[in-house]
Amino acid sequence: MKPKDIENAKARTLELLRKARILLTPLEKDNIEVTDLGLGDLRHVGLQVVVYENNDRYCAKEMVLLPRQICPEHKHPRINHRNIGKQETFRCRWGKVYLYVAGDRTPRPQARVPKTHKRYLNVWHEIILHPGDQYTIPPSGLHWFQAGDKGAVVSEFSSTSTDERDVFTDPRIRRVK
Amino acid sequence: MKPKDIENAKARTLELLRKARILLTPLEKDNIEVTDLGLGDLRHVGLQVVVYENNDRYCAKEMVLLPRQICPEHKHPRINHRNIGKQETFRCRWGKVYLYVAGDRTPRPQARVPKTHKRYLNVWHEIILHPGDQYTIPPSGLHWFQAGDKGAVVSEFSSTSTDERDVFTDPRIRRVK
Repeated sequence: MKPKDIENAKARTLELLRKARILLTPLEKDNIEVTDLGLGDLRHVGLQVVVYENNDRYCAKEMVLLPRQICPEHKHPRINHRNIGKQETFRCRWGKVYLYVAGDRTPRPQARVPKTHKRYLNVWHEIILHPGDQYTIPPSGLHWFQAGDKGAVVSEFSSTSTDERDVFTDPRIRRVK
Repeated sequence: MKPKDIENAKARTLELLRKARILLTPLEKDNIEVTDLGLGDLRHVGLQVVVYENNDRYCAKEMVLLPRQICPEHKHPRINHRNIGKQETFRCRWGKVYLYVAGDRTPRPQARVPKTHKRYLNVWHEIILHPGDQYTIPPSGLHWFQAGDKGAVVSEFSSTSTDERDVFTDPRIRRVK
């Protein structure tokens, strides 16, 4: 990503966090992670993240999605005999989130996905999260999500985050900054 | 506690959550836990809690303290060979929190503690949390905290909560609703 694009995404992230009335320290603001997951199409696919805490037991972060931005389909597989894979709870704080998980395909889903990305989406059971709504994704469960027209701020509570172990459906994806 | 006192604490809790711009579902509002920890002095000692998620891996909740309310000194001891005790991260969202942990005694601490409670406080190393500040308490670490003059809203991210295993310094305390 170009530095200009990263700075622009950070500024829009701060504006959404301001709307959600979520306060960050100056250091946290500097450390906002912007990722396009290696696809070079941040407008459609990507994520902005503020990690509050990630230790060997639990993790908490804020995820910010720009309007209609997609976090593409992935799962958190078993790591070893003691860790069956990351489990995570999404709690919408601001905006709207269209979340897709395994289950009956929802007729007329609300997500709007560019054709180039649609081929890498398998699960279409829709969960709509408004502010105050939450949903827990089981370990190894495929999921993806898209923000509504105004973007979204989502708190994630989870077991330890090991992003590098995530398995994305789209083979082009690399979980890099 | 009298039902009237519980309802009053719930109403004040909702008002503080409103100020912090934290949205709850109607069910979550109904389920707000008000505890005086069995001491019968909610004005000085107690806690209001909204549990978002508590599973066998992680826990997330909002804690609300009324003005100058104290969560008394306690620790989260080792549970078994696989669980070394609850670890928790406090993140202040609104108001001010005076948090006390093991370490050098802070001269002129900001907490105001009634005499009847002071005898059960051993740790006096002060951490002041303003909105956006956070602090992680290690397993088995003694700690207690008091809200500032306007109350406080604190997000807690942690390993699994097992309140009934908490060890309070004050032997009169029972962790009951």
